[in-house]
Amino acid sequence: MARWEPGARERLVLAAVDLFSEQGYDETTVAQIAERAGVTKSTFFRHFPDKRELLVAGQETLSRLLADGIADAPDGATPLDAVAAGLARASEEMGPVNRELGPRLRAAVAASAELQERDALKRVGMAAAMTDALVARGIGDAAARLASEMGVLAFKQGFDAWSGNGRTDDEPLAASALAALDELRAAAAALG
Amino acid sequence: MARWEPGARERLVLAAVDLFSEQGYDETTVAQIAERAGVTKSTFFRHFPDKRELLVAGQETLSRLLADGIADAPDGATPLDAVAAGLARASEEMGPVNRELGPRLRAAVAASAELQERDALKRVGMAAAMTDALVARGIGDAAARLASEMGVLAFKQGFDAWSGNGRTDDEPLAASALAALDELRAAAAALG
Repeated sequence: MARWEPGARERLVLAAVDLFSEQGYDETTVAQIAERAGVTKSTFFRHFPDKRELLVAGQETLSRLLADGIADAPDGATPLDAVAAGLARASEEMGPVNRELGPRLRAAVAASAELQERDALKRVGMAAAMTDALVARGIGDAAARLASEMGVLAFKQGFDAWSGNGRTDDEPLAASALAALDELRAAAAALG
Repeated sequence: MARWEPGARERLVLAAVDLFSEQGYDETTVAQIAERAGVTKSTFFRHFPDKRELLVAGQETLSRLLADGIADAPDGATPLDAVAAGLARASEEMGPVNRELGPRLRAAVAASAELQERDALKRVGMAAAMTDALVARGIGDAAARLASEMGVLAFKQGFDAWSGNGRTDDEPLAASALAALDELRAAAAALG
């Protein structure tokens, strides 16, 4: 079955999200996360300064990749084509551990008001990073903010579909995310 | 100068937001909020069960008004026209105390990671309420989610402009929010 072997960092993230889901974010300690992952506390601290950063690290990487993809889109790309380039770039970095993480993360967020707030703030951070990257391309403020929100919606919907329970096909995340963006693009043209 | 006299409930909200801004959300007690507002702790608890609800109460009202306005939009209204009706309904309820609250709330949010997370979650809640109301009108999922995000952006931008420091004109909030929505509507048509 397993086509990949998670390293210590991935095992720590999976263990943490499971524990957040089972017993709550506030109640989970670094020692418990390390024990569940089968590593020492020192190993935890080689990867993350604390349990909050364990969540935030991935979010910051994601925002950076979205912005980089937008910055590197071809000259003359429309706002949505630039957002599509950002989604493609971020999707490249999402592998088996992210797919495995999806359902567990959704369960943890559903169970915790604290994680719901973190998740909401993550979406604001992703949108802000994309908006800045679009504005840097000379795109107007309203178009940049709107295209970024569409990017956030598409990434979320694409990720949820790709990492849905029971999905075992080889489709890359980019295909799901770009399909969701295309659906929103069509909807934008018909909003009235 | 003063054209309105805030009641105890309004004074409590203003006092709380000022204290959150000055000393942090976690560090602020109900006793301090009541003292700053010039009322007793019993008066606080007649209006709010705790300090968290003091923030959440206004958010829930706002989400309900947005959804009600969408539900009551004329048959055959486009998704964005329905959102405009929601913005107009919610704006009707925003008076001098909300305008006064604007700059203070932005200062408090800027100063507090906890309030940033709450604020982000508030936006997710507003979007979800509008999406549900649009789907109930028979609007497709992608269009409903997109139109709702545009409603959230327009409300935020309209509110920030309307309650900007130094604004003393008589323009109602609805005018600012609907102008922001029109700008996004034009941007949507040119996203590519």
